[in-house]
Amino acid sequence: MPPSISFFVVPGLPEIQKGHNLAELTALAARRAKIAFEDGDILVVAQKIISKAEGSTVRLSTISPSSRAIALAKKLSNDSRFIETVLRESRRVVRSNRVLIVETHHGFVCANAGVDHSNVRGRDFVTLLPRNPDRSARRLAAALQKQTGKRVAVVISDTFGRPWRLGLINVAIGAYGVPALVDLRGTRDRHLKLLRATVLAVADELAAAAGLLMDKSAGNPIVVIRGYRHRFVHDPAARIIRPANEDLFR
Amino acid sequence: MPPSISFFVVPGLPEIQKGHNLAELTALAARRAKIAFEDGDILVVAQKIISKAEGSTVRLSTISPSSRAIALAKKLSNDSRFIETVLRESRRVVRSNRVLIVETHHGFVCANAGVDHSNVRGRDFVTLLPRNPDRSARRLAAALQKQTGKRVAVVISDTFGRPWRLGLINVAIGAYGVPALVDLRGTRDRHLKLLRATVLAVADELAAAAGLLMDKSAGNPIVVIRGYRHRFVHDPAARIIRPANEDLFR
Repeated sequence: MPPSISFFVVPGLPEIQKGHNLAELTALAARRAKIAFEDGDILVVAQKIISKAEGSTVRLSTISPSSRAIALAKKLSNDSRFIETVLRESRRVVRSNRVLIVETHHGFVCANAGVDHSNVRGRDFVTLLPRNPDRSARRLAAALQKQTGKRVAVVISDTFGRPWRLGLINVAIGAYGVPALVDLRGTRDRHLKLLRATVLAVADELAAAAGLLMDKSAGNPIVVIRGYRHRFVHDPAARIIRPANEDLFR
Repeated sequence: MPPSISFFVVPGLPEIQKGHNLAELTALAARRAKIAFEDGDILVVAQKIISKAEGSTVRLSTISPSSRAIALAKKLSNDSRFIETVLRESRRVVRSNRVLIVETHHGFVCANAGVDHSNVRGRDFVTLLPRNPDRSARRLAAALQKQTGKRVAVVISDTFGRPWRLGLINVAIGAYGVPALVDLRGTRDRHLKLLRATVLAVADELAAAAGLLMDKSAGNPIVVIRGYRHRFVHDPAARIIRPANEDLFR
């Protein structure tokens, strides 16, 4: 058999709450499941539990919607306090036809700025995206190294929609320890032709792979990818955000 | 250890040429590598070898460029016969700033209509996308079942760029035997809240996962994904193409 990559969930995590030590809880759940982390493992972590641990949540009942939010909420048949929360997370509204597509303060273009009701306890609470997902990834990797003695990489993922294609896929919104982008330009293919336009979004492919096991309803927020050969680098996922002036699609 | 998904390449495939029997060559390479296919395995196959086997290639020296192609080629500093080939594969030009972004006759929005120089023998040859990638996937799955006795699914992948995000990732352009889209709408999350907007593009996540092993220069055009639990369904990847009137991002 040729070398293979495997991925598996870390089962048995408790419901994550503000102030929880994610690294400690992850290490504990792994030990109970007889998972021993190895150098080079990549942990893909759903943004939802990062946001909860960091307290990036909002109680809608505390929000006073602006007139803009009230108007948009009416158009979209949504809760004006929810829309207000989305607008506060946004730098710019991209579309507001049936769903609010915005550019977040981080620069991500996604529905509802990643503000989300699902998998949050209580009707009144929503989660926001982490303030700085690359920093969250770096801190979690450092804390995991203290807990386990192993140098593991961390990718923080969220499910995004795409223009032109239906369905959501997991993408990387934060990363530490894996290349976000791998630039093959200047290398040659099997026939020695130069590969001209090939930059691979490796962190996004890792996130998408993990998405296969992160079934939303089952609640598997941490997936371990083992056997993927990579350099241990600090290459923030923010680098994947396409500068507006380089957007060939716009 | 919890259940895991593994993926690995089928090494040792020969250079694929027009008329080659891909199923036979794949089964042979697998046997030599001591890989025994299992029911439920998913083969992710790079579009390039499908196109070569089906003869979806063009000799640029046989192409007479139109005046439109000549003008575009000048603007983009590209070969007018290459641009002509791209235009013939396209229903519509989406952008032509630095790269030609088009909508192909299939409905895919991508750079250069998927027409590609890399990994093709000879400077004069380019590959086109397969005429009907879902049909190609179905035929390959059927032929593999004859060869191996196993019911394996097939996903045909290509690397696409994306608006707003840098880098390419592998997406599914053809599929047979796996769900292209999994609709979780109407199901409930752990807190019994309805998941309102969750349709997952599973075929795209499978393609992206395989992309981690399909290193372009190394030439690993077939990746096996084993252990992913799925129903064996006929759900064409064409279903992932977002109808223009449902495109919330445009």
